[in-house]
Amino acid sequence: MALNLDCVGKEFGPYEFEYSDKDIILYALSVGATEQELRYVFEGSDGFCALPTFAVIPATQALFDAVSALQAPLEKLLHGEQAIVWFRPVPTSGRLSTRWSVKNVFDKGKGALAVVSAVTESTDGTPMFENIFSLYIRGEGGFGGDPGPKVEPIEPPKDREPDFEVEQMTLPWQALLYRLNGDRNPLHASPEFAALSGFEKPILHGLCTMGFAVRHFVNTALGGDVSKLKEISGRFTAVTYPGDKIKTQVWKVPDKYILKVTTDRGHTVISNFIAKTA
Amino acid sequence: MALNLDCVGKEFGPYEFEYSDKDIILYALSVGATEQELRYVFEGSDGFCALPTFAVIPATQALFDAVSALQAPLEKLLHGEQAIVWFRPVPTSGRLSTRWSVKNVFDKGKGALAVVSAVTESTDGTPMFENIFSLYIRGEGGFGGDPGPKVEPIEPPKDREPDFEVEQMTLPWQALLYRLNGDRNPLHASPEFAALSGFEKPILHGLCTMGFAVRHFVNTALGGDVSKLKEISGRFTAVTYPGDKIKTQVWKVPDKYILKVTTDRGHTVISNFIAKTA
Repeated sequence: MALNLDCVGKEFGPYEFEYSDKDIILYALSVGATEQELRYVFEGSDGFCALPTFAVIPATQALFDAVSALQAPLEKLLHGEQAIVWFRPVPTSGRLSTRWSVKNVFDKGKGALAVVSAVTESTDGTPMFENIFSLYIRGEGGFGGDPGPKVEPIEPPKDREPDFEVEQMTLPWQALLYRLNGDRNPLHASPEFAALSGFEKPILHGLCTMGFAVRHFVNTALGGDVSKLKEISGRFTAVTYPGDKIKTQVWKVPDKYILKVTTDRGHTVISNFIAKTA
Repeated sequence: MALNLDCVGKEFGPYEFEYSDKDIILYALSVGATEQELRYVFEGSDGFCALPTFAVIPATQALFDAVSALQAPLEKLLHGEQAIVWFRPVPTSGRLSTRWSVKNVFDKGKGALAVVSAVTESTDGTPMFENIFSLYIRGEGGFGGDPGPKVEPIEPPKDREPDFEVEQMTLPWQALLYRLNGDRNPLHASPEFAALSGFEKPILHGLCTMGFAVRHFVNTALGGDVSKLKEISGRFTAVTYPGDKIKTQVWKVPDKYILKVTTDRGHTVISNFIAKTA
């Protein structure tokens, strides 16, 4: 079945998303925050704040609407890349409004790469953040389209150890908790569906792994100050399974940080991963 | 400050509680269900069902309203006993209506014991379940009231091993997850508040420990058939701290089951614990 390319370039929405501190805390716990980080998980703590990557949650509907508009088969879908730009810190509760569009669908030969932008504002029009989701749709390439720009690999410095390093176990049921944030793709829960998609068992959401990694980054490089983070982008290069141990390494380089996320299976799970701060 | 006993015997409510499968799954994860028990944690699984003890969640507001009506100080409050009677299995989503009353306030000398009943129906009046919460309020006894009935201790058979036994670790942040079900008492999150209440650190909700234990019971003695459970009651005799290992032991005796819940600290945390089935 071919993708529906008619939706490319059109703007959709806005739709609204309302959330409370319960959603903020559930998200934080689902990306590995613990009782050692009360400001992410207890509304009565000093400096209670939202983890920056909560920004992906109000945009989840845009992602699913885009998949639907593209008529992309769910079992062929992989999250390829993710970027987030923050215009201000994410509030711990509120009502937000999101517009989205499919910017491009690139022809990668075997697969297609759809780039979806979702821009989120407060209901009074104050810009909050932008998500850019790149979705790889297996088997949907070869339609004679633009292959898209070649992205240069971003490698950490080879000549020195990382400036920060954090290791953390995920739980065998991590994906079941993470999906309560809104992405209920059965790939993350159903052994049968995971097998149909070619995996040995249900996989962790790429955005869950990224949430762990950015939390590790904020806690170390930024001393816990969520307001400093302005931009991230990264590429999902291998899957994390619930129960894997995640290792986040961070190098400070001129103008930015380079992150690398690996698991105890020996794979780099997020590459080309950078963060920019204020 | 004396308790307000004027509320005793009056009926309050009804209030409504609406919930979805998200609440059912969050609850199940918060009482230790894992990816090995998909029917409690994945809405697309065969036989997806609510854990019976989810019944306490729609009644949480009644509990807090009763505490408020009694003018009981939160930092002096302990959950003493809990009983649940089910008239039918808990649906995986719905809208329920609850009426509640403070049945009695007994004078236990040093403390007072308030017995709160919350009866929950579907909005068309079908009886669903009843919760009976017994709250021990430290320092509020000695008001010259009825000491209440003497409860005979219910002991497991001493001459034989339990018929079923399950051990499970709780997470160090178990209470932070459980409180998202609705009981946000800071005793379960704030080290300062826990110290004020005389505990070394935030404690696990008694109903969370009970949720683990009843899940263990249903999975073993009832072969996972949630519809068989008709009644439980138990007494909270020591606190569980998040991170403790819970051991549930089950003995089948004539007409009922006797449960005993201990932790690796060596305490019996729920005693006088019985379950009755269809």
